[in-house]
Amino acid sequence: MHKKLIVQKFGGSSVANVERIQNVAKRVVSYRKQGYNLVVVVSALGDTTDELITLANKINADASEREMDMLLSTGEQISVALLAMAIHKLGEEAISFTGAQVGIITDDSHTRARIIKINADKIREELKKGKIIIVAGFQGVTLTQDITTLGRGGSDLTAVALAKELHADECEIYTDVEGIFTTDPRVEPKARKIDWITYDEMLEMASLGAQVMQARSIEVAKKFNVPIHVRSSFSDKTGTMIVKEVKRMEEVVVNAITLNRNEAKITICNVPDKPGVAAKIFKDLASAGVNVDMIVQNVSHLRQTDISFTISKAEASKAIKLTKKASKQIEAGEVLEDEDIARVSIVGVGMKSHSGVAAGMFDTLAKNKINIEMISTSDISISCIIKNTQAEAAVRSLHERFGLAK
Amino acid sequence: MHKKLIVQKFGGSSVANVERIQNVAKRVVSYRKQGYNLVVVVSALGDTTDELITLANKINADASEREMDMLLSTGEQISVALLAMAIHKLGEEAISFTGAQVGIITDDSHTRARIIKINADKIREELKKGKIIIVAGFQGVTLTQDITTLGRGGSDLTAVALAKELHADECEIYTDVEGIFTTDPRVEPKARKIDWITYDEMLEMASLGAQVMQARSIEVAKKFNVPIHVRSSFSDKTGTMIVKEVKRMEEVVVNAITLNRNEAKITICNVPDKPGVAAKIFKDLASAGVNVDMIVQNVSHLRQTDISFTISKAEASKAIKLTKKASKQIEAGEVLEDEDIARVSIVGVGMKSHSGVAAGMFDTLAKNKINIEMISTSDISISCIIKNTQAEAAVRSLHERFGLAK
Repeated sequence: MHKKLIVQKFGGSSVANVERIQNVAKRVVSYRKQGYNLVVVVSALGDTTDELITLANKINADASEREMDMLLSTGEQISVALLAMAIHKLGEEAISFTGAQVGIITDDSHTRARIIKINADKIREELKKGKIIIVAGFQGVTLTQDITTLGRGGSDLTAVALAKELHADECEIYTDVEGIFTTDPRVEPKARKIDWITYDEMLEMASLGAQVMQARSIEVAKKFNVPIHVRSSFSDKTGTMIVKEVKRMEEVVVNAITLNRNEAKITICNVPDKPGVAAKIFKDLASAGVNVDMIVQNVSHLRQTDISFTISKAEASKAIKLTKKASKQIEAGEVLEDEDIARVSIVGVGMKSHSGVAAGMFDTLAKNKINIEMISTSDISISCIIKNTQAEAAVRSLHERFGLAK
Repeated sequence: MHKKLIVQKFGGSSVANVERIQNVAKRVVSYRKQGYNLVVVVSALGDTTDELITLANKINADASEREMDMLLSTGEQISVALLAMAIHKLGEEAISFTGAQVGIITDDSHTRARIIKINADKIREELKKGKIIIVAGFQGVTLTQDITTLGRGGSDLTAVALAKELHADECEIYTDVEGIFTTDPRVEPKARKIDWITYDEMLEMASLGAQVMQARSIEVAKKFNVPIHVRSSFSDKTGTMIVKEVKRMEEVVVNAITLNRNEAKITICNVPDKPGVAAKIFKDLASAGVNVDMIVQNVSHLRQTDISFTISKAEASKAIKLTKKASKQIEAGEVLEDEDIARVSIVGVGMKSHSGVAAGMFDTLAKNKINIEMISTSDISISCIIKNTQAEAAVRSLHERFGLAK
């Protein structure tokens, strides 16, 4: 009989101390006793990664990325060994592996490596022997045996990639929340856990600031159609399933509201309406490594226009310096900065086939006396930049308007 | 021109914190600037290994040895990454490696693995590029890619084995003392640093309780004639050279006095003088994993004899239980235990060709009213078990008698 194979991923908060490691072991063993084959991916214990970064910074603030990977990959190696020991203690067979040992081959872009392929023979072999496989998340190895890491949230990617490679029946992502919510429950207590959501909606939400899962791992899941189950490591409740297509009885137009308060807005006034002018500004920002998010340029009057864009607050001072310089060079006017903004977005695949959704959003905000400073739309989302002080009111009114509390 | 290659090994206390890591980096770089090729072997930071063992014990007091190796090997991996970063900071090129990455292949005896071979091509390649090579001590990898560790003090072994494999001109072992002393300076302030000592003498000292270097690594150095320099990581003074043969102007008979206070003595009285009786006792102890050190049995009277032996204090209670049981089975008499003993030994290759050395030792102890409870001799050492309270007086009088202070 074919036994179901589940890949389970536990984040750092799920293995933050001895007791939590023991709880994860109990959960894994309870699945084992139900007859599942299991591959368990684990992140570093609690704040280990941050502690190692602090230590490295004391020695060399500009540490080599290769050595950083060498250092940070130890965090997950500690977790997998300890989890294997905890499972042994409960009487089940388990064996731990580093990324290198299970053949997670990556390119050599240290600290943000991409997986090239997985040689999972070792895992298949040990699964056949009836063992629970524990794999260090977040890490891989180059073809020349250098240790690499996959970037923040990389353990999600390890889990999804292994689920794909091993044709797992499901990939469970354990986290400290119960799943994906219609909006942040700290902002809107009526927020409701979403049972099913599509990869596209989840990707959109991740790019709009929802931090439950790493965007790259959702992309991989989408590409290979790996069913994902996001759920809490502190409860047994079903969480949110992320899948290709959600068959809903009634089409839902808006599925979630996201809120991002980590952005700042920069506006360049009186930009000459000439070809190549916008390119100049954004090329300068790009070469300095500043990630620009929303860009809005309106039709011009008197051969002049205003260009606004948002960037992460962390990069604001760098961006403003560069923009002021560029503004002079292109003979534009004043450069304004506003850190007191928030981005509120509505997300849903249903928008594609429904008109009037944008109007509904703007109307709701207007009725609540919330002024819209910038608008940006995609196939399945609409975002508005508003004053930060009005962010919570905006989320709550939109949550109500699109019937998300049910 | 052939550049000299030196293998340098730094123990845990030499890299216990950020400042000490920076000091090690400075020393390594100063050698580099003198034109040496360098392979640097590092242990885990300070107490990291013990902390990881404590953590593992909380989860599973009977942890699998494979998982223990997986866990403990992270300690050295952290050290090598940090040391590489510290060397980069000083402007030199360096690259760190795990034991697995530099092809230290071992058998699968986890926690006490033996090195089978070293595929050092990677090291040679990076040395050619002019890099300083930093290697994680204490660890290796099996042919099936399982991580192993080499046992306590295993970093010494890594250093010596690499020095052999790479035909290094010297293997420097950095420690927190200035070299090998004629005796423990805390016991005899007149103790003098020994400039040259033979592998055999060093091995004898290690087996008699001197803890400067791991015995296995000295055996390997002897086998392949690797010159070792034991010296302090806190000073620039020359330490002790360990070599095959020491050409001394005048033959030194006794080279060092060692003292071991970690043993306990067990005596079985009235053992029947029959074949197989001693075998029974020591077979029982061996199967329980108790290491017996000295064994003394005298000629028998009335077909009975007393057998005394020493074991490590840590194993005393286990040993006494087993011995009492065995004593009943072989119909012997009372079993006596004495933890209040010390073993004082004199060591020197010169003994081989000099008579009267033992007499000199016994005479000196007698003159100082120190009673000898057991005697044991080897080719190059003589050990006496005496009362612990007289241990220091014994060491000092022997140090004087054999002219070690000079």
